[in-house]
Amino acid sequence: MTSYIQTKLEAFKKERENRGRLLISCPDQPGIVAAVSNFLFHYKANIIESSQYSTNPEGGTFFIRIEFECPSLNTLQDELKEEFQPLADQFSMAWTLTCVSELKKLALFVSKEPHCLREILWEWQSGDLMAEIALVVSNHEEARDIVEDLGIPFYYIPASKENRADVEHQQIQLLKEFEVDVIILARYMQILTSTFVSEFPHQIINIHHSFLPAFVGARPYHRAYQRGVKLIGATSHYVTDDLDEGPIIEQDIMRVDHRDHVEDLKKIGRNIERSVLARAVKWHLEDRIIVHDNKTIVF
Amino acid sequence: MTSYIQTKLEAFKKERENRGRLLISCPDQPGIVAAVSNFLFHYKANIIESSQYSTNPEGGTFFIRIEFECPSLNTLQDELKEEFQPLADQFSMAWTLTCVSELKKLALFVSKEPHCLREILWEWQSGDLMAEIALVVSNHEEARDIVEDLGIPFYYIPASKENRADVEHQQIQLLKEFEVDVIILARYMQILTSTFVSEFPHQIINIHHSFLPAFVGARPYHRAYQRGVKLIGATSHYVTDDLDEGPIIEQDIMRVDHRDHVEDLKKIGRNIERSVLARAVKWHLEDRIIVHDNKTIVF
Amino acid sequence: MTSYIQTKLEAFKKERENRGRLLISCPDQPGIVAAVSNFLFHYKANIIESSQYSTNPEGGTFFIRIEFECPSLNTLQDELKEEFQPLADQFSMAWTLTCVSELKKLALFVSKEPHCLREILWEWQSGDLMAEIALVVSNHEEARDIVEDLGIPFYYIPASKENRADVEHQQIQLLKEFEVDVIILARYMQILTSTFVSEFPHQIINIHHSFLPAFVGARPYHRAYQRGVKLIGATSHYVTDDLDEGPIIEQDIMRVDHRDHVEDLKKIGRNIERSVLARAVKWHLEDRIIVHDNKTIVF
Amino acid sequence: MTSYIQTKLEAFKKERENRGRLLISCPDQPGIVAAVSNFLFHYKANIIESSQYSTNPEGGTFFIRIEFECPSLNTLQDELKEEFQPLADQFSMAWTLTCVSELKKLALFVSKEPHCLREILWEWQSGDLMAEIALVVSNHEEARDIVEDLGIPFYYIPASKENRADVEHQQIQLLKEFEVDVIILARYMQILTSTFVSEFPHQIINIHHSFLPAFVGARPYHRAYQRGVKLIGATSHYVTDDLDEGPIIEQDIMRVDHRDHVEDLKKIGRNIERSVLARAVKWHLEDRIIVHDNKTIVF
Repeated sequence: MTSYIQTKLEAFKKERENRGRLLISCPDQPGIVAAVSNFLFHYKANIIESSQYSTNPEGGTFFIRIEFECPSLNTLQDELKEEFQPLADQFSMAWTLTCVSELKKLALFVSKEPHCLREILWEWQSGDLMAEIALVVSNHEEARDIVEDLGIPFYYIPASKENRADVEHQQIQLLKEFEVDVIILARYMQILTSTFVSEFPHQIINIHHSFLPAFVGARPYHRAYQRGVKLIGATSHYVTDDLDEGPIIEQDIMRVDHRDHVEDLKKIGRNIERSVLARAVKWHLEDRIIVHDNKTIVF
Repeated sequence: MTSYIQTKLEAFKKERENRGRLLISCPDQPGIVAAVSNFLFHYKANIIESSQYSTNPEGGTFFIRIEFECPSLNTLQDELKEEFQPLADQFSMAWTLTCVSELKKLALFVSKEPHCLREILWEWQSGDLMAEIALVVSNHEEARDIVEDLGIPFYYIPASKENRADVEHQQIQLLKEFEVDVIILARYMQILTSTFVSEFPHQIINIHHSFLPAFVGARPYHRAYQRGVKLIGATSHYVTDDLDEGPIIEQDIMRVDHRDHVEDLKKIGRNIERSVLARAVKWHLEDRIIVHDNKTIVF
Repeated sequence: MTSYIQTKLEAFKKERENRGRLLISCPDQPGIVAAVSNFLFHYKANIIESSQYSTNPEGGTFFIRIEFECPSLNTLQDELKEEFQPLADQFSMAWTLTCVSELKKLALFVSKEPHCLREILWEWQSGDLMAEIALVVSNHEEARDIVEDLGIPFYYIPASKENRADVEHQQIQLLKEFEVDVIILARYMQILTSTFVSEFPHQIINIHHSFLPAFVGARPYHRAYQRGVKLIGATSHYVTDDLDEGPIIEQDIMRVDHRDHVEDLKKIGRNIERSVLARAVKWHLEDRIIVHDNKTIVF
Repeated sequence: MTSYIQTKLEAFKKERENRGRLLISCPDQPGIVAAVSNFLFHYKANIIESSQYSTNPEGGTFFIRIEFECPSLNTLQDELKEEFQPLADQFSMAWTLTCVSELKKLALFVSKEPHCLREILWEWQSGDLMAEIALVVSNHEEARDIVEDLGIPFYYIPASKENRADVEHQQIQLLKEFEVDVIILARYMQILTSTFVSEFPHQIINIHHSFLPAFVGARPYHRAYQRGVKLIGATSHYVTDDLDEGPIIEQDIMRVDHRDHVEDLKKIGRNIERSVLARAVKWHLEDRIIVHDNKTIVF
């Protein structure tokens, strides 16, 4: 299985070796698109996909995501970045240029319930999630087999309120060592301290089992049942210092009715959670998300 | 137009003159269905539709809604009710028996925005809402024309925090006078006092412009925009003393994204609000809703 | 009512007097975006919204829609068009440039069932549909009142298989006279000949009461009932010579179940039809749709 | 893993040892519910859930599904069936009485694509699908590992047009030997002959990768792409002699747009297929489905 996935990933990297993505935020003004597209054209780049948004055409913030095909991108990328800087300065841009063939490195954090982990691994095995899965971290042993079967390192780190600082220290070490780009909390039921969160700004994606801002915090399905809602949902968001208050990436819901008890809500909810998280992760990996003002722009 | 609707309503009443509905709540135990269906069979009633639910088969509460066709229901209904009482006593039932041909009387309360009022009137004109619309009450004059064009009395009663007691007194008088069965708050933006609410328990249906319990209270679309949610919704619920905390009847949502400003959310939301309220009203008119423990069972 | 709508439309035209839209299709190659954005920048235009798509970056067709704000667009627009032509020739572009303040002229064709007509008129009254409604044509008298109440000319032209040629001749005359840009078949149950259709290529929008390609042709709800489907739908599409085979603009569905008879499917379907048609019309009015290969690109 | 699932299944069987289900179809007439509920009450059975439907209260067909809790059901069930027969005869009933603790035996047929198989196995592992999975049959070797890892027998039977009769003979032998109750075609891409189908009436559940009746037959995603639809779907149905024409159990759809190529439609479609099939299988296992006139009643 493992070598099969590796073959798929290598084929993808080969096929996309000239594919780049440019993400830009800057004050809105006329001429931005002209300047950027001239720059790309100068390098014979063909724009494959482009999306833009402005909070307010008169004096707001402008955002653009451009996916392009540029001959010899691999060898040119340092030059491109260097040459782009003056233009970026001129328009006061915050920007990133990524090469699609340099796959992002993922860490998956999981607790006892495996459904979100499984969905991500499944997407990955099917070739629908182009990333390296660097490691899986869990405070339980349950998931070890399905992870190691895929040739992915599994780290069992028991975690509780008492040893939080030690545990996080150990986790951060691991994440640095594996040069992880993004951390997926696939129903990892531990709260992260601000120390941990500040190490990985807008790089930690959580799945919360309610349609936020309803049912912030613990036991959302119990509270949904108590309140008698007719819809339950799930929310994927970037983790910030405020619990369940980070920028929302994706949400979805399903219908429930009076016959559904808490256990039924959990079952139904698992299906929403896994698909919502999978979509959020995919968009992050494709550099489709810009965070602005505690909200996301998803291109 | 008016006579056209009257003709439709009369035809419906004629067609359903033998149609009855029995709603029962009682402690669960074996034999309830047998006892009730024997009773109905004794009167040669044919069960057309039957739905039941038990919170817990061992010692919970049992609910059933039976729609039946009973020859000569009109003349028999008093006898039926009298004869049913001993059986009801035996099982400690709370129950109602309604004749479908006795249409419920509706009052619509509306403020400036007409979309929910319009949807209800539209459904009514199309013959999809079988009720008498007794009157429309508004604290603005805007809706007068579309209401009076349909031959429905329109009462303009300016309302504000200052004159609330007087206004409600006047409204309650009107509602009593018109023998109103159910009050629809079709975006009536005034808060009702507990005096008013206690006069009409589980008879006042509101539409709130968020998927509750998210964004309880004022300006939900503004707060949805601030929070950056990816779904907006609406909730129809019975009004209780706790603002936006009454039993939820129906909810729905639509997708939004970063391009949608507050005004867009309002536009999109109007479509959700009107369809959610229309469904809730229809279910109430068809005696499909039982309130239990601040939740609804919708059969 | 009428003057209220006129005021809204005038305010919109004033507010958007410098707003333009450029729609382009051409063979894909590097440099298109650079050339077009340079052109716009030369006229100090600020790009407000831009969407693009390519069927295949290597040798496919490229499509772009740009909405921009250009100072003095009204006086400049002829010059802009003239100056753009050489650039268009260079890239072999098919293109249109429209001024948002020049509202499109709509004709609504309706038969007996008014729900789609009503939805369009409603959106228009609420200021959610920015267009001039030039006239309504019907082969029945039913809709006259609600149309004339809004100050819109209503033409009753009885139509049948027998007099089709005459009727269409008369209709085409009217549409020319009113300089109509787009024709909405809001459940107009007559088949149009190819003579009529060829006069208005990609300018006639129909609503079909099924999720095409299921149930092409007559009585889709009867056939949906016969087949026992669990979803029913509606499809809005441009009309071509092949009945129900034109480019699809929008589709949606709702759940049904075994309890729903044909009449129930029709009721539920009406709600889908009106919202699907309203979305399609809005997108057309906003120049969001490009037809390519009997499919639509909706930006 | 295997023993974990066995433990769950045993616990379920223990917990539901007195749980029975009665499914009845018969000509509609007053007194059916009374007769049946009296019968059950006589055995001290408590009705847990009951749903009914009549095609037409005057002279139509009546359907009812009753789930009940009956003390000592295991020892009583033969007596119950014997005693029920006279009542069934009186009302001309077609009926079945099943004991919930006697789990149904499932066969899964799969070809190369594993997503539907995986979903079913996953639900089963999670304790959300109460059945015995007797065996998996495939014309490819791909799925062997994930099946045998769960302790389920895997039969590789290469199949093609040429050897269809032999293959089916072999398959039927296996299914008889394992006493299989229901066959799930989890994307088994071979056509079954009427010989095979007639052996298992209303016991074969297929998943078709389109919202039927659109795109009957081969390559539905290619044809959906060609037609330019804005929704794609999947349909689960019982298999009959007419390809893709059997009674529909469940359908669902997802939105797509012009950017989605055939490969994207397949990816999106896989998620619809697996959830639609999983729901259909669950309903079948819970005896919720009655087939009538090539349609399903799903209680």
